[in-house]
Amino acid sequence: MNLNIALLPGDGIGPEVLDQAVKCLQAVEETFNHNFTYKEASVGAIAIDKTGTPLPKKTLDLCKNADAVLFGAIGDPKYDNNPTVKVRPEQGLLQLRKELGLYTNIRPVKVFSTLIEKSPLKEEIITNTDFTIYRELTGGIYFGEKKVNESGTIASDLCEYSEKEISRIAHMAFKASKNRNNKLTLVDKANVLESSRLWRRVVSKIGESYPEVLLEFLFVDNAAMQIILNPSQFDVILTENMFGDIISDESSVIGGSIGLLPSASIGDERALFEPIHGSYPQATGKNIANPIASILSAAMLLEHFGLFEEAMSVREAVDKSLRKGVVTSDLDETSKYGTDHVGDFIADNI
Amino acid sequence: MNLNIALLPGDGIGPEVLDQAVKCLQAVEETFNHNFTYKEASVGAIAIDKTGTPLPKKTLDLCKNADAVLFGAIGDPKYDNNPTVKVRPEQGLLQLRKELGLYTNIRPVKVFSTLIEKSPLKEEIITNTDFTIYRELTGGIYFGEKKVNESGTIASDLCEYSEKEISRIAHMAFKASKNRNNKLTLVDKANVLESSRLWRRVVSKIGESYPEVLLEFLFVDNAAMQIILNPSQFDVILTENMFGDIISDESSVIGGSIGLLPSASIGDERALFEPIHGSYPQATGKNIANPIASILSAAMLLEHFGLFEEAMSVREAVDKSLRKGVVTSDLDETSKYGTDHVGDFIADNI
Ligand SMILES: CC(C)[C@H](C(=O)O)[C@@H](O)C(=O)O
Ligand SMILES: CC(C)[C@H](C(=O)O)[C@@H](O)C(=O)O
Repeated sequence: MNLNIALLPGDGIGPEVLDQAVKCLQAVEETFNHNFTYKEASVGAIAIDKTGTPLPKKTLDLCKNADAVLFGAIGDPKYDNNPTVKVRPEQGLLQLRKELGLYTNIRPVKVFSTLIEKSPLKEEIITNTDFTIYRELTGGIYFGEKKVNESGTIASDLCEYSEKEISRIAHMAFKASKNRNNKLTLVDKANVLESSRLWRRVVSKIGESYPEVLLEFLFVDNAAMQIILNPSQFDVILTENMFGDIISDESSVIGGSIGLLPSASIGDERALFEPIHGSYPQATGKNIANPIASILSAAMLLEHFGLFEEAMSVREAVDKSLRKGVVTSDLDETSKYGTDHVGDFIADNI
Repeated sequence: MNLNIALLPGDGIGPEVLDQAVKCLQAVEETFNHNFTYKEASVGAIAIDKTGTPLPKKTLDLCKNADAVLFGAIGDPKYDNNPTVKVRPEQGLLQLRKELGLYTNIRPVKVFSTLIEKSPLKEEIITNTDFTIYRELTGGIYFGEKKVNESGTIASDLCEYSEKEISRIAHMAFKASKNRNNKLTLVDKANVLESSRLWRRVVSKIGESYPEVLLEFLFVDNAAMQIILNPSQFDVILTENMFGDIISDESSVIGGSIGLLPSASIGDERALFEPIHGSYPQATGKNIANPIASILSAAMLLEHFGLFEEAMSVREAVDKSLRKGVVTSDLDETSKYGTDHVGDFIADNI
């Protein structure tokens, strides 16, 4: 297969971990006789530094012309606490999601048996945890109208959803449930929010076309508890943008390391793959960042194009690195392996 | 001291647990020679059933004329999944918070040493956890304008904050930090939301008047992770209404049981005390609900009026019930003690 992949390393540890993912894709090309081309462009803080904007037109065009985007990480603390800043790195990612129409963010949450003891949660709580979060990614309070009054004393964000925005991701989530364990949990705050009540109405209606899927509802505050108390109850979780941001990061802790978790952001025409973790500025350039989330994001990319055997070979190589202890120091304090060594090991085992 | 206390049992297990809290207050009256009067009124689903509205005027008036309100629980599942319902029990609680001006919700998160093994989290993670959440309670997306278009296909909720709303709770939170360990963590989503950026600006400014307090910022998605990864890092957490709802419920799991956690909702003139847990409909009328959160809410009420010794005697009686295993079955599966028996035991030990 020929694939044209846009590489967006972004900020912080983004470039280091993305490099390892590319190594693995190259190993896949070789082993399975594919032909991938890679073109790189800047996004985020680094793009602001270079061009004044977090998503240069060149970058956006590259992504629009690619078959898929592989993304590193975004964010730089120098923008976070400075209230006078007008342009923010994160805007680059948000605009990219919007422009590419990536309305569904898919985040698998799984426990690696070799890492069970790394989890802050007790083993009996997390065994058998295996669920996937479908987070709406281009709507809600992230993209609603933002206002500040002239004196800067009142500020607001609008959380708006339309039936159309809800139904397209709901269908994806129901289909995913059908291919898994036939259970879908809608997380919302329908006892308070009008937008949540729309979610409930639309999702309930769509549920009628998926009679084999058990549809449950959970308030987001309760969900935040249930994810820790009993994560194995979940199969597919469907939720809006902001709640998805919070509960998917919370869920990412279950497995013991956020450094392992990939995500896919899918639209009708385009797809982007990125680790869940952020730009981890303290680790930048130290060759200590865990590249596995980025490598598993590449595996999700392969699956997206139907390359299941290829994806499996990447996963198996990752499992081997975990089994053999060829991991970065976040997973094993005594480890002396750097980001690149772990990447090499995994690529070599594909 | 004379105190005029409004009792709002509400729905589900509310009445059962509130009864036990009143028993304890009566024991305090006797032991410490106080004179409390209690007047009851209905709120929530039960008020809808009786009067058509979740917060009857009589109830509101009672609360306005009382020194403090002791609240049970609210919510009935028959209202949750019915999209045609126009009046909801929760509106009663929200309206009450608004009408009484209870803008600060205080939720202490502590680990009872006798219950460490009940937590889903590992002991080494949760020991030394002792923080308090200050959640804004009368603003934000809970109370912003709600809209649905005519065809019912678009719905929105507005999240709006003013400097004034932020600064009054921020002062409370900074003062609380000063009386604790001098650390305040503002939880927001300032990389995306305009309202969060206003929170950061206002809180940073106010922080200059509390130079002894270390002010930190945490994005809400990261906070949802840190609360599980390393809860002992927190001293006081300050956050807006919706984020506070989610992270305080998440935090409530740390200690092993949500049945133990009280909360205080404070305004400039009035105060309301309620357990964090909900109306737990499955347990209603079975005499199995844990009354401790309600009893500890009564202890917070006593503290609010400066009755520290009295509050301490309630806490010590609660500790004794935990130590002696006089607890409901949520804390000890083999326990045969009912809600009322636990309440009697604690009241007898005051
Ligand atoms: C960087 C930030 C804007 C982003 C988000 O909130 O969506 C990130 O936290 C994520 O979850 O991908
Ligand atoms: C019942 C509900 C409206 C309420 C809230 O969301 O504030 C509850 O969850 C709480 O936290 O007190």
